[in-house]
Amino acid sequence: MARIKVDGNTSIYALAGKYISFSPVPEFFNQISSFTGYNSVMIPVSTERYGIKPILDSLIKTNCRGVLIDTPHRCELNDWLTSVSDEANNCGAVNIVRIEEDGSIHGHNTEISAFRRAFPKITSEELREKKIFIFGTGGIARAVAFACALEKCAGITIANHNPHKARQLCALLNDKFGNIAMAADFNAPETIHGFYNADIIIQATSVGMFPKFDVQPLPEHFNFMSHHIVFDTIYNPPQTKLMYMAEKRGCRVYNGMDIMFYNCFEAFRWWTGIKVDEENEKKLFNIWKDLIYNI
Amino acid sequence: MARIKVDGNTSIYALAGKYISFSPVPEFFNQISSFTGYNSVMIPVSTERYGIKPILDSLIKTNCRGVLIDTPHRCELNDWLTSVSDEANNCGAVNIVRIEEDGSIHGHNTEISAFRRAFPKITSEELREKKIFIFGTGGIARAVAFACALEKCAGITIANHNPHKARQLCALLNDKFGNIAMAADFNAPETIHGFYNADIIIQATSVGMFPKFDVQPLPEHFNFMSHHIVFDTIYNPPQTKLMYMAEKRGCRVYNGMDIMFYNCFEAFRWWTGIKVDEENEKKLFNIWKDLIYNI
Repeated sequence: MARIKVDGNTSIYALAGKYISFSPVPEFFNQISSFTGYNSVMIPVSTERYGIKPILDSLIKTNCRGVLIDTPHRCELNDWLTSVSDEANNCGAVNIVRIEEDGSIHGHNTEISAFRRAFPKITSEELREKKIFIFGTGGIARAVAFACALEKCAGITIANHNPHKARQLCALLNDKFGNIAMAADFNAPETIHGFYNADIIIQATSVGMFPKFDVQPLPEHFNFMSHHIVFDTIYNPPQTKLMYMAEKRGCRVYNGMDIMFYNCFEAFRWWTGIKVDEENEKKLFNIWKDLIYNI
Repeated sequence: MARIKVDGNTSIYALAGKYISFSPVPEFFNQISSFTGYNSVMIPVSTERYGIKPILDSLIKTNCRGVLIDTPHRCELNDWLTSVSDEANNCGAVNIVRIEEDGSIHGHNTEISAFRRAFPKITSEELREKKIFIFGTGGIARAVAFACALEKCAGITIANHNPHKARQLCALLNDKFGNIAMAADFNAPETIHGFYNADIIIQATSVGMFPKFDVQPLPEHFNFMSHHIVFDTIYNPPQTKLMYMAEKRGCRVYNGMDIMFYNCFEAFRWWTGIKVDEENEKKLFNIWKDLIYNI
């Protein structure tokens, strides 16, 4: 439990999303505050009834200073904010906003840098020169795809249940980074080649997330090969159905738990300007493990 | 510092008012939550920019479950709420609302019962059969006046910079309790008699509150007598100018600190249904003292 003292000068932050009831993020953010002595508290705010924009309006009125934008709202805000950072603007996903005293709202994306930092730490692998296969085109998928491109991966294949969105995201990536991305059509030979020849397969949709854990996005006939590194951005359940299938085929599998650790750090830093040094980061990583490995 | 764990199921409560930046109430409410294991967190919400009604609307949208209504909003809400308890309706002051899942808002007054409980504990005096002189007609003054009437005091004289409001409040009291209250006009002989013959003088306006601590509501020529028990509902500063003047004249003087302790308890109980037993109440009183005697 975080030790925090809420007084009249405490800054309020919020986690806003549709599926946040099991999220460890408010508690971990409060642990970072407690650890650094920053006077703030994060509260959870469900967007289920009102949607993200009326919730943001309400949070502005109640003096909230920043909001983490959770699933499924990362791609809804770009045109609505006072300003959007280059990272968020380029990838089309805002996962964090900062609210100034004058009520202006500034959007940013911390998931790109969090993924770039976290992936090599978690997997001991570089993204550089790897062939990547990504499921999804939502906020997380966009951040992951941009992170892979920025890390100079060899190429990205993007699969989505709505192929139009996959083509749009590929066009955006190709426009920024040259011809590196290809939208997948599961029946097309080049998609099938792309899947088997991928080094890293990244699941970045909400398919398989609690409570619907008995589903996975891979179509029939697609089988993991033992050389695949399989990364699921979901963290609850800790082992998704996709991860289970991949593990059975001998793959190295990872989940999204520790991405979120780095994302909380990046978010805290963007809001407060406070950079936690490496030694304290290690201590906080132990707190994070206690927290998230027990949900 | 309260040890609390904020997760997706944590209930949010708020303290809403214009002058809350130094309030110890959120921290103490969080201490009660921590102590009882109730999963909630209280945040401060300033009403300075938007006023109380837009703030309440915003808090409803962000799933807040209850709000303590602080100065100067206790008399603004009666006609606006879904329901108002008899206590709050009778005295015309709502100091607490509970928000149901369907968005309905229910108002109540916990300051009447808090004052009835706290006054004898703090002063070792009963209100029964005492002659009371009250400054103010706002939310706190109303709660104090009703508490005195319910405790069967001998009579109440009410002074206010707006005498019309004092007459209205007296009419309300006389209507409920028989002929016990009289509005003061500082130049009228019966007011002067009322002042000197009072047993207990209660200051229930915001005059003298931080940061304007160099003022007090007593007009020229009015002097405290050593038999007066002087109670100031303000707690910051701990000794108001009025209390200083009274003490110099040999009076027993008390401030509003511990009223708020009992009020937090009554509020917590009304919201959650949880009654803290006497032993734990004593432990929490020590926490309260550590908190409030150090602001």
